[in-house]
Amino acid sequence: MPQKKGKYTFELTTTPAVLGYAAVVGKKEGEGPYGKYYDQCHNDTTLGESSWEKAESRMQNEAVNIALRKSNLKNTDIDCIFAGDLLNQCISSTFGLKSLDIPFLGQFGACSTMAQTLGIASLFVESGAAGRAAAVTSSHFCSAERQYRFPLEYGGQRTPTAQWTATAAGCVLLGKRQDNPGAKIGLKAVTFGRIADFGIKDANNMGAAMAPAAAQTLMDFFKDSESSPQEFDLILTGDLGFIGSELLEEILGKEGIDIKPVHNDCGMMIYDREKQDVHAGGSGCGCSAAILCSAILQQMEQGQLHNVLFVGTGALMSPTSSQQGESIPSVAHLVYLTAT
Amino acid sequence: MPQKKGKYTFELTTTPAVLGYAAVVGKKEGEGPYGKYYDQCHNDTTLGESSWEKAESRMQNEAVNIALRKSNLKNTDIDCIFAGDLLNQCISSTFGLKSLDIPFLGQFGACSTMAQTLGIASLFVESGAAGRAAAVTSSHFCSAERQYRFPLEYGGQRTPTAQWTATAAGCVLLGKRQDNPGAKIGLKAVTFGRIADFGIKDANNMGAAMAPAAAQTLMDFFKDSESSPQEFDLILTGDLGFIGSELLEEILGKEGIDIKPVHNDCGMMIYDREKQDVHAGGSGCGCSAAILCSAILQQMEQGQLHNVLFVGTGALMSPTSSQQGESIPSVAHLVYLTAT
Repeated sequence: MPQKKGKYTFELTTTPAVLGYAAVVGKKEGEGPYGKYYDQCHNDTTLGESSWEKAESRMQNEAVNIALRKSNLKNTDIDCIFAGDLLNQCISSTFGLKSLDIPFLGQFGACSTMAQTLGIASLFVESGAAGRAAAVTSSHFCSAERQYRFPLEYGGQRTPTAQWTATAAGCVLLGKRQDNPGAKIGLKAVTFGRIADFGIKDANNMGAAMAPAAAQTLMDFFKDSESSPQEFDLILTGDLGFIGSELLEEILGKEGIDIKPVHNDCGMMIYDREKQDVHAGGSGCGCSAAILCSAILQQMEQGQLHNVLFVGTGALMSPTSSQQGESIPSVAHLVYLTAT
Repeated sequence: MPQKKGKYTFELTTTPAVLGYAAVVGKKEGEGPYGKYYDQCHNDTTLGESSWEKAESRMQNEAVNIALRKSNLKNTDIDCIFAGDLLNQCISSTFGLKSLDIPFLGQFGACSTMAQTLGIASLFVESGAAGRAAAVTSSHFCSAERQYRFPLEYGGQRTPTAQWTATAAGCVLLGKRQDNPGAKIGLKAVTFGRIADFGIKDANNMGAAMAPAAAQTLMDFFKDSESSPQEFDLILTGDLGFIGSELLEEILGKEGIDIKPVHNDCGMMIYDREKQDVHAGGSGCGCSAAILCSAILQQMEQGQLHNVLFVGTGALMSPTSSQQGESIPSVAHLVYLTAT
């Protein structure tokens, strides 16, 4: 049974097991610093589909199917699937996963979706509600760009604070610890975030909008669990990018919490910022999903990383809310992963 | 601890308690057959706000605050809030609930959102993860119409199969049974649906698209729980409307399951179809939320209804997917409510 610890943290006493995971990415991501870690890199980012939206759906479907295959499981072995994405009405998830015939619970946490789905799935497994559960998400540069910003053909200039939406999908499969005693990676705690809104309105500077949410959730977790940054090998935010990462370290620094020595950000990792011309870094649900579901979980399995805090950050705005002059409320959800 | 029963149903052995609930609606809904049951009816459906989207956010905020007040609880008493709506990136929920400062988990189940949020919240409470949890949703005719169909000013004609998106919000607060032994209403089981897609492409006939999903989830539940329709006082779908309701009864009839004597549909209840000129009935996340969180829960508390199956149905499409020629995948989630 999950145990509430402090005000916002759920301790997972059984340490639900990571049974499998997969990351599927596009060409630019495959050419990035973590290219060799992904399960699948598509040089044609249409994936042969007739629209960017259909391509994104297919990436999500591939991520689940590869994760199932790697863990010798079938779709019917999964009790429920938690999935979401950035597209209006989460159509990447719906259309990508409908053929799997698994009870489907659509999630919306913007770029925090990988952490949100993983957190809820872990509580379902911990509580015995699900024997096995899947957490999935995706984003696609081209489907996101035309929905949130401009048609690609317009060739709009990007500001230095802008982040590049990753073309990527990731999936993690979880199962009960008692059924999988040999699984190397488990989940130890979850902290779900409250919405933070510091009044930032610049939709081209999401990092700054999301940093306060990440700081709040991390502070909640450290307080609830009576722990400190140096107890972890890695505090992995996703995706604050360059601006947001500096801001997060600064906010926490003022509170006397120094995460710098162990902090990294998926948005800073997925691309070579200079060579790949992505300005403040990567973003999109698929960015943190791809980094977590490749290099990070692989390094945990290989014993290079032991205790990892994965903090997904999401900007909960829409083009409509921005056009109506609203600020950008943000949220951050934290998952504590451990490797034995 | 939740117990898996059959393949898709979770039995809630502690029967999590309904601590409070509230429904807030617009003018047309207040003038409908259930007008007297709602907590708040707004004659000005802008609620004095500068946009329909902000009005919808405010309805959601009011629903939560009224439910809290009615159950003598404060926002800080709630461990997490599950909320979603129809607007792109679920902005009604985000902006409506950000001031509450409660850990926020955005959900997307289209018009099934009330059942989805209630189902997940009940599992969180049952498992002990949350001491108290809130389930919330909303829709607004004007914000939905301009997002999904046409600007209101265009005055587009509606087809006979079209449903009218309700201007409404609903909230249910749940708590542990052991802490609330006197609570009259509890949740006994949850069945999360798989996505059903029968190839229907007419976005003005959502009822037909969603009926197969409702039939599938109901059949899953009856099979898993070894029960039959006559064991329930009410099987309440939301929102299939006139066409979808007939279709659901027909599909189940062919399987030898007769729900007709106990079946009603929130989309058929919320308006007077003839006098209020709503064609096939009501729809929108707020429709089933408002009916459940007013008349139904009140009648359960007063002993008029004992065993109710609440089946939220959602059409998981977007204008983009429809414009790309895709069909309308649907989902239905079931919650079994009981009154003592």
